[in-house]
Amino acid sequence: MRDIQSPSEQDYIQQLSIDCVIFGYQDSQLSVLVPKLNFRGDFWALPSGFIYQDEGIDEAARRILEDRTGIKDIYLEQFRVFGNSPRSNIRFLERLIELNEDTLGDKRFGRKEFDWITRRFVSIGYYALVDLNKVVPRKTELDESIDWYPVRALPPMIMDHQEMVNSALETLQLNLDQKLIAFNLLPETFTMRELQELYESIFDRAFARNNFQKKILDLDVLERLEKKFTGAANKAPFLYRFRNGNP
Amino acid sequence: MRDIQSPSEQDYIQQLSIDCVIFGYQDSQLSVLVPKLNFRGDFWALPSGFIYQDEGIDEAARRILEDRTGIKDIYLEQFRVFGNSPRSNIRFLERLIELNEDTLGDKRFGRKEFDWITRRFVSIGYYALVDLNKVVPRKTELDESIDWYPVRALPPMIMDHQEMVNSALETLQLNLDQKLIAFNLLPETFTMRELQELYESIFDRAFARNNFQKKILDLDVLERLEKKFTGAANKAPFLYRFRNGNP
Repeated sequence: MRDIQSPSEQDYIQQLSIDCVIFGYQDSQLSVLVPKLNFRGDFWALPSGFIYQDEGIDEAARRILEDRTGIKDIYLEQFRVFGNSPRSNIRFLERLIELNEDTLGDKRFGRKEFDWITRRFVSIGYYALVDLNKVVPRKTELDESIDWYPVRALPPMIMDHQEMVNSALETLQLNLDQKLIAFNLLPETFTMRELQELYESIFDRAFARNNFQKKILDLDVLERLEKKFTGAANKAPFLYRFRNGNP
Repeated sequence: MRDIQSPSEQDYIQQLSIDCVIFGYQDSQLSVLVPKLNFRGDFWALPSGFIYQDEGIDEAARRILEDRTGIKDIYLEQFRVFGNSPRSNIRFLERLIELNEDTLGDKRFGRKEFDWITRRFVSIGYYALVDLNKVVPRKTELDESIDWYPVRALPPMIMDHQEMVNSALETLQLNLDQKLIAFNLLPETFTMRELQELYESIFDRAFARNNFQKKILDLDVLERLEKKFTGAANKAPFLYRFRNGNP
């Protein structure tokens, strides 16, 4: 792992960053993974980083996610570039200076790094949706903590990170039908009710059961399994699984 | 309009570019607008440019499109960032050198600009779909010509521009239902057949008429108008228009 704390003009592409929105799903609840930075004051920020000169952007996103959260081997996809406003860390860093003069001394940033990091940045947003039980985030020395927060009750984040989450959520909703299998969120076999709960948590609204079932079956990606004989067969729900080789 | 021929380190964000894929629709045919560069040899390239330091990326995309094609006031949207391979103009520029040594002398690029433009670039792809009758592309002095080419028979383009078109087309197909109104492609009133022809040209396949009609009506964005009395009412197709205020 290369040093993630000292951005240098030669190593990285300048003025271009990557931010990761990691959604976690568990018990019908949708959350987002947000580190709290290890500075005086309350600074929450999405897992972020820069792109090495010899590194592809998808590769950079995977490395940054692992460096900042310990999470790897998940399906991560770009969703939008943020660069309409003059995005800059400068307000965030000025606030850091107010709180702790040392922060910008030799301790963390030199003058050169400060100049580098306070220029305007365009940022590529990547997102993922993971089963919360299958990943264990780990905080780095940059962070005071790293936690999952309910998607609709996030802590105040620096810069435009809340807007990034909103935009990632829109993309997730728009593409959920196509990405169901890629996200690998459900157990191998599941009930229609479990699938509906997943959709309801992501769309934050209830779906009518019959309409939902029809919509999902129309996607033509599910295989219905035989009911097990339980002695109360009419009450046992059907189990489904994703068909092999389908989108 | 600022000078588009002399990229400078200070004015633009380095190593970041924008490429535009402009789809045109006319007479059930889908085309792409491609300038042919005004160099010796046959170089086709998508309309491209760089982002000024004080310019938002969407604003930059609109300016670049207007600078390079004369087209403005259309619905332009980002669809993907290209930056996995070490994208660089260097092969294209080396080929230019082989063909015409003067090209890299004072005539077009100085050494500094050459160094600037031959570094790795990450590029943000923007796309649009326009009614071919409503826009008049105009070539710049950078171009020998600018023309619409059938989407499935494009000339060989530099770098990864063909991949960009393929990716933009996938996005167009994925989002067509949602973007129908934004693209403003059809006359105010239109028949179901005209709408089906639009879909068929974009998906490059035939749709069954009944299924198509059902799918489109399920989108719940169309309003069906009264048939005009023509003396042969049973042969006249219904006319539709987009409902106001719908997505």
